[in-house]
Amino acid sequence: MNTEEGTKNEKMWHTAAHVFASALTEIYPNVKIAIGPPIEMGFHYDFELEKNLNEKDLEKIEEKMKEILKKKETMEHEIIPIKKALEVFKNNPYKIELINDLQANGEKEISIYKTGNFLDMCKGPHLNSTSEIGAIKLLKISSAYWKGNEKNKQLQRVYGIAFKTQQELDNWIKLRDEAESSDHNKIGREQNLFMTHELIGQGLPLLMPRGAKLFQILTRWIEDEEEKRGYVYTKTPYMAKSDLYKVSGHWEHYKDGMFILGDEKNPGEIMALRPMTCPYQFLIYKNGLKSYKDLPIRYAETSILFRNESSGEMHGLTRVRQFTLSEGHLIVTPEQLEHEFKEVINLINYVMDTLGIREDITYRFSKWDPKNKKEKYIDNPEAWEHSQNEMKKILDNLGIKYVEAEGEAAFYGPKLDLQTKNVYGKEDTLITVQIDFALPERFDMTYVDKDGQKKRPYIIHRSSIGCYERTMAMLIEKYKGAFPTWLSPEQVTIIPVSEKFSNYANKVKQELLENKIRAKVDERNETLGYRIRDTQKEKVPYAIVVGAKEEETKKVAIRPRNGEQQTLTIQEFVEKINKEIKEKK
Amino acid sequence: MNTEEGTKNEKMWHTAAHVFASALTEIYPNVKIAIGPPIEMGFHYDFELEKNLNEKDLEKIEEKMKEILKKKETMEHEIIPIKKALEVFKNNPYKIELINDLQANGEKEISIYKTGNFLDMCKGPHLNSTSEIGAIKLLKISSAYWKGNEKNKQLQRVYGIAFKTQQELDNWIKLRDEAESSDHNKIGREQNLFMTHELIGQGLPLLMPRGAKLFQILTRWIEDEEEKRGYVYTKTPYMAKSDLYKVSGHWEHYKDGMFILGDEKNPGEIMALRPMTCPYQFLIYKNGLKSYKDLPIRYAETSILFRNESSGEMHGLTRVRQFTLSEGHLIVTPEQLEHEFKEVINLINYVMDTLGIREDITYRFSKWDPKNKKEKYIDNPEAWEHSQNEMKKILDNLGIKYVEAEGEAAFYGPKLDLQTKNVYGKEDTLITVQIDFALPERFDMTYVDKDGQKKRPYIIHRSSIGCYERTMAMLIEKYKGAFPTWLSPEQVTIIPVSEKFSNYANKVKQELLENKIRAKVDERNETLGYRIRDTQKEKVPYAIVVGAKEEETKKVAIRPRNGEQQTLTIQEFVEKINKEIKEKK
Repeated sequence: MNTEEGTKNEKMWHTAAHVFASALTEIYPNVKIAIGPPIEMGFHYDFELEKNLNEKDLEKIEEKMKEILKKKETMEHEIIPIKKALEVFKNNPYKIELINDLQANGEKEISIYKTGNFLDMCKGPHLNSTSEIGAIKLLKISSAYWKGNEKNKQLQRVYGIAFKTQQELDNWIKLRDEAESSDHNKIGREQNLFMTHELIGQGLPLLMPRGAKLFQILTRWIEDEEEKRGYVYTKTPYMAKSDLYKVSGHWEHYKDGMFILGDEKNPGEIMALRPMTCPYQFLIYKNGLKSYKDLPIRYAETSILFRNESSGEMHGLTRVRQFTLSEGHLIVTPEQLEHEFKEVINLINYVMDTLGIREDITYRFSKWDPKNKKEKYIDNPEAWEHSQNEMKKILDNLGIKYVEAEGEAAFYGPKLDLQTKNVYGKEDTLITVQIDFALPERFDMTYVDKDGQKKRPYIIHRSSIGCYERTMAMLIEKYKGAFPTWLSPEQVTIIPVSEKFSNYANKVKQELLENKIRAKVDERNETLGYRIRDTQKEKVPYAIVVGAKEEETKKVAIRPRNGEQQTLTIQEFVEKINKEIKEKK
Repeated sequence: MNTEEGTKNEKMWHTAAHVFASALTEIYPNVKIAIGPPIEMGFHYDFELEKNLNEKDLEKIEEKMKEILKKKETMEHEIIPIKKALEVFKNNPYKIELINDLQANGEKEISIYKTGNFLDMCKGPHLNSTSEIGAIKLLKISSAYWKGNEKNKQLQRVYGIAFKTQQELDNWIKLRDEAESSDHNKIGREQNLFMTHELIGQGLPLLMPRGAKLFQILTRWIEDEEEKRGYVYTKTPYMAKSDLYKVSGHWEHYKDGMFILGDEKNPGEIMALRPMTCPYQFLIYKNGLKSYKDLPIRYAETSILFRNESSGEMHGLTRVRQFTLSEGHLIVTPEQLEHEFKEVINLINYVMDTLGIREDITYRFSKWDPKNKKEKYIDNPEAWEHSQNEMKKILDNLGIKYVEAEGEAAFYGPKLDLQTKNVYGKEDTLITVQIDFALPERFDMTYVDKDGQKKRPYIIHRSSIGCYERTMAMLIEKYKGAFPTWLSPEQVTIIPVSEKFSNYANKVKQELLENKIRAKVDERNETLGYRIRDTQKEKVPYAIVVGAKEEETKKVAIRPRNGEQQTLTIQEFVEKINKEIKEKK
């Protein structure tokens, strides 16, 4: 969406929020409306009301909104003194609190907008008239804390959207419905890949056997591939004393995102669950003197991390409080930096290609913000300049097309972000590669160079497949559960035409299992057709039907999810499917 | 050690503790002695003293103790009224606190022992005379909190031991030194398998690349083996709301061992790191209706668990605050219980045999304690009786030789414990198998039986290889780092006789890597002999030497850690070592 269109939408949605609040107040005169901003898609409005609104109520409010729209009222802007504003809104504690906040910030006047008889505090901008809104829809009822703070009162929140024409609204609804039906948070649950439970809490999905299998396939693949490329794996603890994070700088720059544990049994020890593995691998590096001959060292870990998110932010497998990163830190001499960075990109490209998602990736070169150097970043402008130049040179040599983003770097150095969009079009970072000039200093990491001098290495922080849970979400949305054979939790379902061939079916299964092919027998008391359709519904890559002829000839009749039916010997089928798996298809 | 000998040792060590305190008081008249009990091996004594004792001081105290022993004094027992005791010990706040505690418990008299001029509060029993002590030794200086509570003052603690003869003491020292030199906590660090770091904290070992590789080999083996035997894996979160543990009973029976997290971002949510995975897998079971046709369900997980231990209790890889359990829960009908239990034992036996540690295992049948039924156990005597009888029948059918232990059951059912001893002879539980009749009820788990009725399943809680960290410790002590080929972090070191053959060496390495054999090239600028010896020192199963002859004939000269030197083609060597790996040798 271009900027002009963005501003137009914002005005439209902001205006629609006023229309909503106006309708709400007409129907429920006792309502205390709080705030109602435009959001990425539409608007929401928060309010306090004794009655808990339901779907029926929304319909009534929507009708009232349409009545208001018919009046084609202008949006009248007015600036009034604080004192008058306090009088106008005296019955609404939320507006009064906001006015007092503005006054505390030195404001002397308040901006208000008037639509018909309805008045609201608002800075705008708005459409000139409600007549520009051609279609409006209320989407859902939810709740939110006043000012987003869980210690405050919980308010009701209604979401809505508006467009210039009914046609535009209808299009938008169609696209949204399509997106919702391929949201991993829906498909993943339907296909028993994961679940959540209120006794466990939000943002803590449980991988069910099918999801845990997919997870295992991905982690083993990445671990083996990285080892082939010279990485060595570590397995480090998931918590540490706050002392560690004080050295790393996380305590200063990242504490808010961490889970902190006081430890009563060992008082004086404040522990924290780890949000990143960097400092743990740095301590392993520091165990024993290192020489230039030891570098590069490429540490990797299938690393569990914890980040404390507010409950409103959590979603499926993408916004969670515990996740698994294919994390790695390359410790390199300055001379090795460019080559190793390129090898990291090669690895990432290989991974994205293999998963079939490289085309969905865009690149962002995230730099620091010199205007914000004390708060968000290690304050060393020369080092920033140098490492950003290095990174730009490498990216340009690699021919990577990127957008530059100021103020998006890590606190210790610039990064390359691989960005993806989910089914709703929301952009998210899948993978980052960072050049770190600061932490080697903070952890006093050195190597002895050829000349016998102790020198500082560079560190490349990187992932290869990103956060497994998020990548799984992307794969679920991409393949809608019909995973390629090598990724399928089940690869083969063997269906005996009748009970008589159950023995042979189980013999085939055993032979497949011994060849490390994931197979099961479906000997339910259902018709052959029903069971074949069920296998297709479950998106299993191969259904195998066995009956008298197959048993006699030691063959199997194959019905692939994609492709032609075939009859093969068991050995031929094993070779065929193993070739597919080996080629990651 | 039999009980009689145990009592004799206890008397000896208890008496030696008095001799220590007597000597200490003579040298440091201002010392405030606290308590000095006999322990598993010897005794310790805690005391408050301004000077921090060092090795030299211990020698002086030991000399004084020997002087005291030469006097061959009798241990005189006396019972005195509380009031008199308060007068006798008025200068010692620790003894006064203990006397007050006893008085609060309803005691009216205090038991004291006198050795020469030295008086101590003590219930005994003691030797009749210090003349029975023939040899005495102080072992180390440490510290401890008064009454073991970290909120109290920290005291100095001295450990010592005593025997009837010098010969016995010398033998004991020799055995202890041998044990110490094969303690995994020493070998494991020396061989770069793991490390700890003060910034991270005690009981949180970091697996270095060699240790992480061993860990990966073991977990993948167990995961694959269990899947072959019909287990399905889950991957569940490492924390949950306290609500979950209230349902499971952990909050009531186990809270003290858990890490609790208050969550400021989501107030009202008390979270806890998990000490066990049971309730998580139960919730997966409950996702969707289950029929008798679905059972048995065998859930497994390579499960990270957290237990809050006091700092004094932590040791190497065996007593840690975070560990990894090969955890599993079988959900079975009553009819399936015996068969599934047997299959669990078969799996465990296979695992122990393969690791070569089955001979080191003894079995303990842990039952509840009916006298303690309200506090420690689910109070349902009939169910206990029934499930203990079931378990006894199964164990007897299996011909397992066990000792029975009352009061060692889990709170929800009886268990079979596989016990091992570490290098110091200390017994620990490696694996448990439990029959659970209680949690299916608490979690309202059901299945629909053939008759259409909802019924309660049984649950078998079990492990197969136990806690990976502890089993690794056992393997390190057993093999002293010379792991069997399949478990070795490095399997082959290729040594070119000179720089000229570095290319060929690397070609061989590549071929081995492609065959999934863990190989590296040692092309350091050192003599051939030095590098071969280094490979042997590192306990790498195979050293391969390559020079002109080998390159010409595409062969390799093999020097196995055990066995004869041989010259083979690369392919022959790959087959040889892969056979070894496949057979887990």
